[in-house]
Amino acid sequence: MTVKKPGGLAGIEAGQTAISTVGKNGKGLTYRGYSIHDLALQGTFEETAYLLIHGELPDEQQLADYKQKLISSRKLPNELANLLELLPAHAHPMEVLLAGCSVLGTLEPENEERTAGDIADRLLALTGPMLLYWYYYHHNGLRVQTETPDESLAGHFLHLLHGSPPEELAVKAFDVSLTLYAEHEFNASTFASRVTASTMSNYYSCITTGIGTLRGNLHGGANEAVMELITKFQTPDEAEAGILQMLAEKQLIMGFGHRVYTVSDPRSDIIKGLAQQLSALADDGHLYALSERIEQVMRREKNLFPNLDFYSAAAYHFMGIPTCLFTPVFVLARTAGWTAHIMEQRSNNRIIRPIAAYTGPDQLTWASVDRRRPPTEESR
Amino acid sequence: MTVKKPGGLAGIEAGQTAISTVGKNGKGLTYRGYSIHDLALQGTFEETAYLLIHGELPDEQQLADYKQKLISSRKLPNELANLLELLPAHAHPMEVLLAGCSVLGTLEPENEERTAGDIADRLLALTGPMLLYWYYYHHNGLRVQTETPDESLAGHFLHLLHGSPPEELAVKAFDVSLTLYAEHEFNASTFASRVTASTMSNYYSCITTGIGTLRGNLHGGANEAVMELITKFQTPDEAEAGILQMLAEKQLIMGFGHRVYTVSDPRSDIIKGLAQQLSALADDGHLYALSERIEQVMRREKNLFPNLDFYSAAAYHFMGIPTCLFTPVFVLARTAGWTAHIMEQRSNNRIIRPIAAYTGPDQLTWASVDRRRPPTEESR
Repeated sequence: MTVKKPGGLAGIEAGQTAISTVGKNGKGLTYRGYSIHDLALQGTFEETAYLLIHGELPDEQQLADYKQKLISSRKLPNELANLLELLPAHAHPMEVLLAGCSVLGTLEPENEERTAGDIADRLLALTGPMLLYWYYYHHNGLRVQTETPDESLAGHFLHLLHGSPPEELAVKAFDVSLTLYAEHEFNASTFASRVTASTMSNYYSCITTGIGTLRGNLHGGANEAVMELITKFQTPDEAEAGILQMLAEKQLIMGFGHRVYTVSDPRSDIIKGLAQQLSALADDGHLYALSERIEQVMRREKNLFPNLDFYSAAAYHFMGIPTCLFTPVFVLARTAGWTAHIMEQRSNNRIIRPIAAYTGPDQLTWASVDRRRPPTEESR
Repeated sequence: MTVKKPGGLAGIEAGQTAISTVGKNGKGLTYRGYSIHDLALQGTFEETAYLLIHGELPDEQQLADYKQKLISSRKLPNELANLLELLPAHAHPMEVLLAGCSVLGTLEPENEERTAGDIADRLLALTGPMLLYWYYYHHNGLRVQTETPDESLAGHFLHLLHGSPPEELAVKAFDVSLTLYAEHEFNASTFASRVTASTMSNYYSCITTGIGTLRGNLHGGANEAVMELITKFQTPDEAEAGILQMLAEKQLIMGFGHRVYTVSDPRSDIIKGLAQQLSALADDGHLYALSERIEQVMRREKNLFPNLDFYSAAAYHFMGIPTCLFTPVFVLARTAGWTAHIMEQRSNNRIIRPIAAYTGPDQLTWASVDRRRPPTEESR
């Protein structure tokens, strides 16, 4: 028996970063040295975004200026609104963001006056408007006004989504979830963004790489997959039976375990607490209770812990966010982390170009097309 | 003195591939076992694309059917044409492709009936039309008809570009250059596409990652950078003096050397030969001669060989391709290689998620925003 190579670059150091630590002692998470608990529970997403994009926590004046900058960046350019009207109603919202971000890149290109940091701030402010303008235009025939008086990004998004000022608890919970999703070291989308940055491509291209990579079910798409899972069941008992059956069939249960964390995901307890509070407010039925039951079953049967995606699904659902927007919301948050990594990659760049172990055929002899025959049994 | 880590995953095996070998004995290149010389000089780009995307060289009937499939895929959907009209005239053509590809993904999504291979073929046929429809709409106010009677992709592209049936030599040379650019193992854009594929994202997202990553000057953008370099000079003597000065100033000279090839780039002689033939036809002035002089100077002074990008610049110029379309043409070719790698990644997938060496601050103490002060000299 040969030893299988780990693959997927698992455990391989692909570079250096000063931005975050993931999984110290199997469980820790810090952004630029600050613990995720402090950032999420004592700070705001705006402070985290500033910390990641602009390098340090803002003081009072810097934070006030930064919030004002974000507030004044919420208006969609007309051409972008036109594009959003042109996309079909059945488009995948992640493709709406891909297309929107590419088109914004042609309207507001990166240059000496408009730096990556400026564009990052603009994208933070515009991701919600892009998504929700497209969503309401195609689902309700409305051209929504994307500016609201809300102070925070979280409040702005929920206000636009619901068309009315949001509940304080929902704003707080959404704000916390953005901080939790903001950054995570060399995860696949961030690493892919760094590969794009390493060719000296422009900022928008790095972000579209991030968006495209986040979309997959094994990454950002997991929160939507969790929602699909938990809404299959009506009660905790049904959920327990269903999960046991899925495990017996060796199906993958989304939202559990993590390549880098081995003990627990430090973000999970935070979002779980908020999901519970939101559940009480939301006339939940059984969604929170059955989520907890699934957590218990997975610990008991597989010794696996929930990761951030698991309770995020219920929390977003209680906030009234449609499932198809869960991963796009992750984009909004992770834009901060991607940007920090793109800048870091640029500041000490070497093109990321690994090699492959070749497993294909030895040199084959060319035959012109008229002399090619279907391969015989022997030559196969 | 500490030994510096190589960085950029140089020389690191990031996975396995059966698609190509790059740099065997410092110089070789094969696609699925066939030598690049046979593929480029005896085959056509359609055969190479079929080999890469569909796994083996086509026989006569398969090739005829394949060409017909590509020919019948040249018409832009109306919505895509509308998008191209909406993009600004000063957009970067690589962003046109990014946006076009994202929007096509919403119009013709990947599903059980429309596989990655089908979409790859559609993109091969549509990349030229997307680019050139946009180009002529904004530069000449024309809505070009994107279907032509040309049999080959190369002929179709040049016909659309010039608005008249192209020269046979130009079609041959362009066809060869597409084969040369079609595939190159774990280069940055292909590797980034594989990272996107590894999250189980959809095919279009993998391709937009490829496009965004190819754009950088250290990768696909290099052929445009070479053109900028060689058109600075009027004569071979001027070029020699200019290059010597740039070397003295330690400026990077684009189009020379390669991370994986150590002896020579096997594609360079092929494109050089064609550039020379095209030069004779094109009333060149000194562009070919001064390119050759730059090659001599770089060999003499730095012991560096030209890579594919170097003579591709002159060759494309002689074909009448505007410099801003050099890298987009590279996209057209590399779509074949990206697709092969996306399929290979999917067929034996593990999410590509490396780790980073942490170089940031140890745990910092949180202070609420009203208690943050600008750091003192001491605390810096």
